[in-house]
Amino acid sequence: MKACIISIGNELLRGKTVNTNASDFGMKLTLCGYDVVRGFTVMDDPKEIAWALEVGMESADLVLTTGGLGPTFDDMTVESISKALGIPLIMDSETSDRLRKRYKMLGLEPTPERLKMAMIPRGSKALYNPVGAAPGIMLSDHDKTIIILPGVPEEANAILDSIMDIIRIKGVEYYSESRYLKGVMESSLVPIVNKVMKKMNSKVYIKSHPRHSETGNPAVELEILARSDKADHAKDLVEKAFDMVFGELNEVKK
Amino acid sequence: MKACIISIGNELLRGKTVNTNASDFGMKLTLCGYDVVRGFTVMDDPKEIAWALEVGMESADLVLTTGGLGPTFDDMTVESISKALGIPLIMDSETSDRLRKRYKMLGLEPTPERLKMAMIPRGSKALYNPVGAAPGIMLSDHDKTIIILPGVPEEANAILDSIMDIIRIKGVEYYSESRYLKGVMESSLVPIVNKVMKKMNSKVYIKSHPRHSETGNPAVELEILARSDKADHAKDLVEKAFDMVFGELNEVKK
Repeated sequence: MKACIISIGNELLRGKTVNTNASDFGMKLTLCGYDVVRGFTVMDDPKEIAWALEVGMESADLVLTTGGLGPTFDDMTVESISKALGIPLIMDSETSDRLRKRYKMLGLEPTPERLKMAMIPRGSKALYNPVGAAPGIMLSDHDKTIIILPGVPEEANAILDSIMDIIRIKGVEYYSESRYLKGVMESSLVPIVNKVMKKMNSKVYIKSHPRHSETGNPAVELEILARSDKADHAKDLVEKAFDMVFGELNEVKK
Repeated sequence: MKACIISIGNELLRGKTVNTNASDFGMKLTLCGYDVVRGFTVMDDPKEIAWALEVGMESADLVLTTGGLGPTFDDMTVESISKALGIPLIMDSETSDRLRKRYKMLGLEPTPERLKMAMIPRGSKALYNPVGAAPGIMLSDHDKTIIILPGVPEEANAILDSIMDIIRIKGVEYYSESRYLKGVMESSLVPIVNKVMKKMNSKVYIKSHPRHSETGNPAVELEILARSDKADHAKDLVEKAFDMVFGELNEVKK
């Protein structure tokens, strides 16, 4: 199963904000068994949001969006998705009751901007936000799952954590481990990595991340990943591949 | 002028790595006068890289890629871009000389994997990498500028910094300022922001970033941006907009 992540917000494109949501969600979706195949960052603009949603739904089974759920004029994710899918917005009564109560406690009016956060596409499910005001939203359309999360990292992560067991793909276990190799150049590892991946029939994926200058003071983080129907088996594959890499490295040093 | 950023690497999609390059480059391109309109994150896969390049060139005048320039099997950015554009790769002699010397000093052979980093599309310019081995690349195609940078942040930033004066759009000055408003809820700011943006004839862009829970212990970072042909004028617009926002806030409090 494939997933893609759409991050919405001019502040991400302008570089004001580092997109930690994309990596947090990428990691969580991977652990749930998905291949995260594409990421998009788009402006606070209904056309751009609709474009990313369309391409995302063509590319993946699960599309997760983050950002644009608040009360301001440029929070337009839910409305844009609703229009793009042709599904009208309705007021989620549970959410609007909650918002009315919270604003009342603060002595504030439930203005249209505040109640906008309770509008969700008909047939979708509001996902309780334990940290903030705007709920997340989950819906199905054309056999695709769409998850709409806020942009504030604490809120988005809390909501995603609450649905991990629902979206997890059964029978797919994932294991990844990284080891640091000091004094090893990435370019020296290339033939070894190729050999080990071939020997293991591509059951593992080996990725090297240079951590210092290739030709200065070299160091490489070697990451090995595997998937299996059993967690123990995925881990065994990774350990076996590490043993093979270290064996080859020792051969070279001799 | 529009720009887009293509980040290449499975580790970004899986969330192993936080994409600080996208925000660093987004900030730098914005300061150079560009509107960064779209961001893509794609896999280490020639088809995916070609797809992002095609959509990127349709969306923007300048396309910047990051990642996939090293010596490993999954570093395939330059080859993929060369194929997608139909421009053959040639060996950049200055870069290959530099690489040969550096590897020789280290007592190492200039293997094909290592010299791969000196291959660039014909007619393009290798951009010296003061920190690492793989150079950046700049080329023009169909009136678009394409800049290809490594994925290692220190290397990519050093190369981009070295060409900022070349890509800067003349006569466009950008100014942005942020102020923290404690005890103010984002939803309370909405009518004020709308009013001020209207009064200023949309010469400024005002964006609010919630920094605490909307209904808990609220705080908002208010960011105001402006562009002008003169730096002083852009700053004046921003200051004037802040004064108007604070004036309106004081009215509300009375």
